[in-house]
Amino acid sequence: MPTYKAPLHDYRFILHELLEIGQYSELPGFSDAQEDVVNAILEEAAKLSEEVLQPLNQIGDEEGCTLENGEVRTPKGFKEAYQTLVEGGWPALTADPNYGGQGLPNTLAVMFNEMVSSANMAFGMYPGLSHGAYSALINHGADELKDRYLPKLVTGEWTGTMNLTEPHCGTDLGLLRTKAVPQGDGSYKISGQKIFISAGEHDLAENIIHLVLARIEGAPEGVGGISLFVVPKFLVNDDGSLGARNGVRCGSLEKKMGIHGNATCVLNYDDAVGWLVGVENKGLRAMFTMMNEARLGVALQGLSQSEAAYQNAADYARERLQGRALTGPKEEDKPADPIIVHPDVRRMLMNARAFNEGARALLAWTALQGDLAHLSSDEKQREFGEDMMSLLTPVLKGYFTDKGFANAVEAQQVYGGHGYIDEWGMGQFVRDARIAMIYEGANGIQALDLVGRKLAQNGGRAVFAFFKLVDEELAALEGQGDLGFAAAPLKEAKAQLEEATSWFMENALKNFDHAGAGSSDYMHLFGLTAIALMWAKMARISAAKAKTGGAEAEFYKNKLITARYYMERVLPETGAHLARIKTGADSMMALAADAF
Amino acid sequence: MPTYKAPLHDYRFILHELLEIGQYSELPGFSDAQEDVVNAILEEAAKLSEEVLQPLNQIGDEEGCTLENGEVRTPKGFKEAYQTLVEGGWPALTADPNYGGQGLPNTLAVMFNEMVSSANMAFGMYPGLSHGAYSALINHGADELKDRYLPKLVTGEWTGTMNLTEPHCGTDLGLLRTKAVPQGDGSYKISGQKIFISAGEHDLAENIIHLVLARIEGAPEGVGGISLFVVPKFLVNDDGSLGARNGVRCGSLEKKMGIHGNATCVLNYDDAVGWLVGVENKGLRAMFTMMNEARLGVALQGLSQSEAAYQNAADYARERLQGRALTGPKEEDKPADPIIVHPDVRRMLMNARAFNEGARALLAWTALQGDLAHLSSDEKQREFGEDMMSLLTPVLKGYFTDKGFANAVEAQQVYGGHGYIDEWGMGQFVRDARIAMIYEGANGIQALDLVGRKLAQNGGRAVFAFFKLVDEELAALEGQGDLGFAAAPLKEAKAQLEEATSWFMENALKNFDHAGAGSSDYMHLFGLTAIALMWAKMARISAAKAKTGGAEAEFYKNKLITARYYMERVLPETGAHLARIKTGADSMMALAADAF
Repeated sequence: MPTYKAPLHDYRFILHELLEIGQYSELPGFSDAQEDVVNAILEEAAKLSEEVLQPLNQIGDEEGCTLENGEVRTPKGFKEAYQTLVEGGWPALTADPNYGGQGLPNTLAVMFNEMVSSANMAFGMYPGLSHGAYSALINHGADELKDRYLPKLVTGEWTGTMNLTEPHCGTDLGLLRTKAVPQGDGSYKISGQKIFISAGEHDLAENIIHLVLARIEGAPEGVGGISLFVVPKFLVNDDGSLGARNGVRCGSLEKKMGIHGNATCVLNYDDAVGWLVGVENKGLRAMFTMMNEARLGVALQGLSQSEAAYQNAADYARERLQGRALTGPKEEDKPADPIIVHPDVRRMLMNARAFNEGARALLAWTALQGDLAHLSSDEKQREFGEDMMSLLTPVLKGYFTDKGFANAVEAQQVYGGHGYIDEWGMGQFVRDARIAMIYEGANGIQALDLVGRKLAQNGGRAVFAFFKLVDEELAALEGQGDLGFAAAPLKEAKAQLEEATSWFMENALKNFDHAGAGSSDYMHLFGLTAIALMWAKMARISAAKAKTGGAEAEFYKNKLITARYYMERVLPETGAHLARIKTGADSMMALAADAF
Repeated sequence: MPTYKAPLHDYRFILHELLEIGQYSELPGFSDAQEDVVNAILEEAAKLSEEVLQPLNQIGDEEGCTLENGEVRTPKGFKEAYQTLVEGGWPALTADPNYGGQGLPNTLAVMFNEMVSSANMAFGMYPGLSHGAYSALINHGADELKDRYLPKLVTGEWTGTMNLTEPHCGTDLGLLRTKAVPQGDGSYKISGQKIFISAGEHDLAENIIHLVLARIEGAPEGVGGISLFVVPKFLVNDDGSLGARNGVRCGSLEKKMGIHGNATCVLNYDDAVGWLVGVENKGLRAMFTMMNEARLGVALQGLSQSEAAYQNAADYARERLQGRALTGPKEEDKPADPIIVHPDVRRMLMNARAFNEGARALLAWTALQGDLAHLSSDEKQREFGEDMMSLLTPVLKGYFTDKGFANAVEAQQVYGGHGYIDEWGMGQFVRDARIAMIYEGANGIQALDLVGRKLAQNGGRAVFAFFKLVDEELAALEGQGDLGFAAAPLKEAKAQLEEATSWFMENALKNFDHAGAGSSDYMHLFGLTAIALMWAKMARISAAKAKTGGAEAEFYKNKLITARYYMERVLPETGAHLARIKTGADSMMALAADAF
């Protein structure tokens, strides 16, 4: 049976030493995030994840969700666990205090969410999607809608969903057909079919608030005719009590590769009553508020499965006795050495570890930029924060989920044959992690968003700001001889990223396919470099502290070892990505479609 | 529902144009493999695979095998399909004519096996393992055992298995405990538990011939005390009729990630009667005959899942309408373009295609070397064939299965959300392909076999012969200006492989962990280079034929496009592998085991 232990020491290191969040204590939200408070919150979250959610993970996978007479039953224990989550006030963590939230920064929430998702990814999607619905409503909804729906989304008494995909359209939302007919009283009647709706129907909460994209009768074709609606499962009376059942029903549950504990629904809307969120025909923009937040949430799922799989693989590698070390027996008294003595087993563990710690830092750093974009009083800082969030969201979503999946596969590999057997639980990490590469915009779409949209925005302001950031770090590393192992590779990776960026600027306008052909490689090149930047920062901090000795010195020494591993063993991929990008689209597009 | 179409044109190209097998018609086996005969056999095999086996693939996954009262029932239709296979005489394809075989070369059999495995990997394992048992017996068994067991293994009336793994030992067979007690009449009583036994019990055949590793009472500890036994499910009387049920029973079936249609058994041996195969305490050597053949069979499974997944993804990409081409609409009359217009979708398809065609050529080339090692009258050719088989077996097993899995994942990605839903069948390719990286020696073991054993054998004779082969190809390419796209990258990859090889020679003896630390990278570097060699050869042949025009010219033009894609987009990975190898083991091994 897999286990999970929250990386609390790493969180503290990131918050207080890498990000030094204490410096923002003047800002709303951060003022309540004093070091001791934050640490206590993280410890409570760890308990919830380790003791309540993780033990249900494998059960959730085996049992899955069931649909009977239109009602969906979640796996055994999920209902009680959700109740515990609600009683702990966790759904309110970052929500607006005006609606009952605690108003804490998202920098903290990404850590809470990583723990929940590492413990039980399928479960974590229920509150995760509620938060997406919350965001769409608070950012775009009229006050009346906010007052009606937000308080109970914030407590977690109700949950939320996002309804985009239809059978014939996922990526290309311009094709969607679900229609909304105005009723003259401000409400609409919504009809159509949505598929792949995560957490679409379940028994965890008394009401479900669906955010639904639909086309108002007579609206223009394409993406310019799509509006966003709020459609509750049960209508909500003015006094807040629940009214009639609305015309939205779960038609079936998808049988799928993983995340069995989450109900992936076909939702049929049949004259369901809904209300417009935001402006007519501008629904896509409102939905993107949810999507962008959701994309960081998915990036975090990639990290979470990599972390959980890694922890279990490390335990197994310490315990499983098989063969002898190449350099001679390490535990002579035993019939064989533990397999952690074998370099190739180490390779798989170190790959995951170097990613996990680097990605965790980058995710928190990015979330902090998002917080500062909203909260800072300094316009430059807000702009920089906004730029970084916008630029890095597709990088994190795409790279973290590709790499998170790859790490889960390697962790499974550590188990040999046992990794393939269900009872050991390693296959679940692989199967669960797989969806993160697909949903909230498949990773190819993220790559295109990065290259086709984010690079050019504001004349490339964001990407140039990122390069400057790397230059500043390189300057800080200068003269620190023992950090040469980090400086040189970071400098090279940045040069390669610059070269790739220039290549697109020079060639993509001549043939847009050149941009598309190199987009996935560019996303990976960016992710590798951004994590290298974090490792350089962490190595610089750790080098100073490792020297002071003391009980904590080991932590910093291990950070330095892992930083070195990242630079030596993970980062060299960048060269291949650059080489591929520079070959352009010609050989990729040359074959006739029917020749495949 | 997935489909499958055997790549017959590619097989003909490989056999008759790349390998020119006609030149070996003087050799036994090849004399019966005239061009028209071979093509007819391949066509029949294609029919069997496409029409009989493929339609059962998804059913097999959904239904799986069931154990009731010690009897295993295979999925619906498997029994009839197996009967069709037997009636077609397929199990006899390469078997010795003295025991009823057709004696055809293995070069042909790898193509047959690829088709079967592409159509239905779980099914293909039943005859696949039989052939392993056949090989162990024919190479190491006494005549009496051969006469008793081989004829019905060859017809396929009986099937076979390999029994190595025990709960506490997979890779490290020195730890195995199953014991054999001599009965004084030449027989032994075998007792112990074996796990992960593929095709270990089923309802397809009237008898199952288990090849079992066990330790004779009083034998030395470790691998030097292991013997190989043949243990039939039903004892076989002297007249060939079936006698008493032997003491081997299926204790349970593993619940596993994929290959559900194959019964993965816990087999309990309880005083089961068995007979020694080969020499006492030399069982491992005999088992390696099976293992090496099985490893090529597993390499082929990696290719097969990549091919099957690729074909379906290509179909989907041609049919699914979503978005518009970056360069402007391609099918204006439709609501959207088919997704095959998008470079990133092409990238995933071309990655798989470039691997599939190159790997298929390399597998057939390697199988041919194996045939020549046995059949050639020229001692140099036998030695070269043996060297190449020995050197390339771990490369093919490790690289083909890693890459085959990665390609199945990318093919699934082409489907977006539908790829995650069971009914589309793409998840099955991923889950089935996953086991090939694990069994018959996990890929880390393959890498270690390559670096730790195969490189140094006979003073490096095999690897130097491989380098010479590449040099000969480079010489053949010289002066052919339009093939510069292939020559330069092949030359560079070979130089990197040489550099990595030298690095091991200089450093591994100082610290064996340096060999282990770079072994997986070296295996990939080798695989990439060996496939590049095949692509160079195929490009050279195709360049000449593409110019002649005619109806077939398209085939050769597509080969040239795919060759170019391979060189530009796949091969650049080699640089990262070399860089990693040269960093050695230090950062990989530095962390204390309990720090993970």
